[in-house]
Amino acid sequence: MPRLVMKFGGTSVADLDRIRNAATKVKREVDAGYEVAVVVSAMSGETNKLVGHVRDASASEGANHPGFYDAREYDAIVSSGEQVTSGLMALTLQEMGVPARSWQGWQVPVLTSDAHSTARILDIDTTNLDQKFDEGLHAVIAGFQGISEEGRITTLGRGGSDTTAVAFAAALGAERCDIYTDVDGVYTTDPRIEKGARKLDRISFEEMLELASLGAKVLQTRSVELAMQRKVKLMVRSSFSDDPGTLVCDEEEIVEKNVVSGIAAEKEQAKVTLLKVADKPGVAASIFGPLADNGVNVDMIIQNISEEGHTDMTFSCASDQVERAKSVLEGARDEIEYTEMIFDPGVAKVSIVGIGMRSHSGVAKTMFSALAADGVNIKVITTSEIKVSVLIDCKYMELAVQSLHAAFGLETA
Amino acid sequence: MPRLVMKFGGTSVADLDRIRNAATKVKREVDAGYEVAVVVSAMSGETNKLVGHVRDASASEGANHPGFYDAREYDAIVSSGEQVTSGLMALTLQEMGVPARSWQGWQVPVLTSDAHSTARILDIDTTNLDQKFDEGLHAVIAGFQGISEEGRITTLGRGGSDTTAVAFAAALGAERCDIYTDVDGVYTTDPRIEKGARKLDRISFEEMLELASLGAKVLQTRSVELAMQRKVKLMVRSSFSDDPGTLVCDEEEIVEKNVVSGIAAEKEQAKVTLLKVADKPGVAASIFGPLADNGVNVDMIIQNISEEGHTDMTFSCASDQVERAKSVLEGARDEIEYTEMIFDPGVAKVSIVGIGMRSHSGVAKTMFSALAADGVNIKVITTSEIKVSVLIDCKYMELAVQSLHAAFGLETA
Repeated sequence: MPRLVMKFGGTSVADLDRIRNAATKVKREVDAGYEVAVVVSAMSGETNKLVGHVRDASASEGANHPGFYDAREYDAIVSSGEQVTSGLMALTLQEMGVPARSWQGWQVPVLTSDAHSTARILDIDTTNLDQKFDEGLHAVIAGFQGISEEGRITTLGRGGSDTTAVAFAAALGAERCDIYTDVDGVYTTDPRIEKGARKLDRISFEEMLELASLGAKVLQTRSVELAMQRKVKLMVRSSFSDDPGTLVCDEEEIVEKNVVSGIAAEKEQAKVTLLKVADKPGVAASIFGPLADNGVNVDMIIQNISEEGHTDMTFSCASDQVERAKSVLEGARDEIEYTEMIFDPGVAKVSIVGIGMRSHSGVAKTMFSALAADGVNIKVITTSEIKVSVLIDCKYMELAVQSLHAAFGLETA
Repeated sequence: MPRLVMKFGGTSVADLDRIRNAATKVKREVDAGYEVAVVVSAMSGETNKLVGHVRDASASEGANHPGFYDAREYDAIVSSGEQVTSGLMALTLQEMGVPARSWQGWQVPVLTSDAHSTARILDIDTTNLDQKFDEGLHAVIAGFQGISEEGRITTLGRGGSDTTAVAFAAALGAERCDIYTDVDGVYTTDPRIEKGARKLDRISFEEMLELASLGAKVLQTRSVELAMQRKVKLMVRSSFSDDPGTLVCDEEEIVEKNVVSGIAAEKEQAKVTLLKVADKPGVAASIFGPLADNGVNVDMIIQNISEEGHTDMTFSCASDQVERAKSVLEGARDEIEYTEMIFDPGVAKVSIVGIGMRSHSGVAKTMFSALAADGVNIKVITTSEIKVSVLIDCKYMELAVQSLHAAFGLETA
């Protein structure tokens, strides 16, 4: 029998009515002849509550390491949220006449690395599941979790249930992996910014990856990477409607390749420039090594050759990491030998993404012209094969998205 | 190093402040040189919340079996309560400088029968725990749960954490098993009924068993049975004071054996009498077989020989089971051949318990005289080696307890 993985996020299983609603969708696929593996998140709010308990427990007065805690215990506690939902979903399916049983990560088992709270899936042994499928039992799998070699519960980090779903789809040879969420698909851009944003029928993995990492929070980046590697077709669709959603698939399956598929935008970015850095081997490492070691997440990096053995180095990061970056770079001043440090904490990143760019020229030009026509000044540009990103003044972000949406004809496409 | 098991019930770990309070007690024992295994219940209210979710999930409109549910999923869901507390307790201990890790039932493992939601512990393999003790890691064990041969989570039924604690104390060869609760020990009787009730320093397993099954809800009956079998010393003590509590131990360790150690009382009992039952082999089975099959919990059974090949049969059960008993017995009337059925739904059971009764005569006489002096009519009497129980009119229960408490000198003892 063909197999299907269906993943429901926290808002789709937020209470028993919603679990019932989700179960109805599962029953429909079972009735259509699929062996279904349902992957569930914790009821929305539950994970935050549990994380709050962990923080409180490790923040007691006189604590030995206030604010720090054993990630193994964090995982044991937080994974209980998905455990509850998986049991409730199995019960609800049974009540609807769909034979089902719940599986915790350790029961499958889902073997992961021992990087507690940010573990990676190493292997899924589906022997037990296959046997139960043969007995007619559909599976409800607690997402976001696994078990380490040592036999301890691990979690995959926030959004890990998407990754769980994709990994199971690959391991089970599923026809498709449906990600049910509170939006009904992937849009050309954020509909809150541009009312004319249009839902895409299909999008390639590469495009989705760029959009996911650019702040379109539909799918977790890691799950898209995994789907691309393992050739798992992903369908992003709504728990609250019956619309078909957006298929995320291999480039080859997309006949009409869009030059630009979508526009991503991200606020609260900061631009940092170091002037007259010595232009010598190892200087980039001396800047970005200490930043990484101190937990500063650097996004874009731009280097321009300047004159007389010096260069200017610019990078971007989230606004709330600027202070940390500042103190790290001040500490490393002697080694980096810059003359000045310039901070611009109020910038936004706007990016156009499309696999059609590979075979079309003039895309960047269209972008720059559209922005110029609306008086938006570009501070930094970076490009990849299927993406052009710019940093602009934060206050122009919405305007820039709207201009670009129109300039690339995304409303009608 | 000597070992100690410390069990904290739901009210003792109801929130993070209380978990910290309990952890302080654990630290004190660790500092005193013990290897400690802490057994925790779910935070109070949590189990009820989870059970409510299960009920709701299985009571949906159009459900295939409304009100029934898969006990395996019930166990998966409900066991998450203890999982959370064990992690939080481990974190809290770590913050206090006590190295600790949490253990779920399946991690130890605690092997149980597959009678989901009422499982029995079959074996505890302490190899993993022993190894971690050797590394200096104290254990925090999620109570109330285990794993079946099939690899599914099981639970032991309400109050099962007491049983978990005693089973670990036996398996680990612990010096003692301390049961921390919201009362500070075992009393001669319920202090809400008799203000002069006195806390006992020691009580024998046999006495505790009679008191536990007679409605003194300090310890779960099964845990006392297990402690008696495996010779585990139990200490019942308060989470909210430093008083020593009551030691439940072998009879041989009690020098001064009380004739009467305690008085138990239970309201909402019913007395049922069948008149002129045929006095022939198999008649008792024909009465109590169908009652058991239909879930009526029969407590006392009294049979008196009457005349001409007939006998009267009386039994007691909880008041809320009377209606069910009635319809079962009416259905079996042809087989039992009774002439009349008499119901008395408003009775109470009062019992005196004491191992000293074995060597003292006149105990029953003292009891009956005391009750008679206060005008309390006795409806039914049963006795065992260390117990005398009577059924009386419900409204006299408090008076009877007070009379007996005085008659046996329990205030001063």
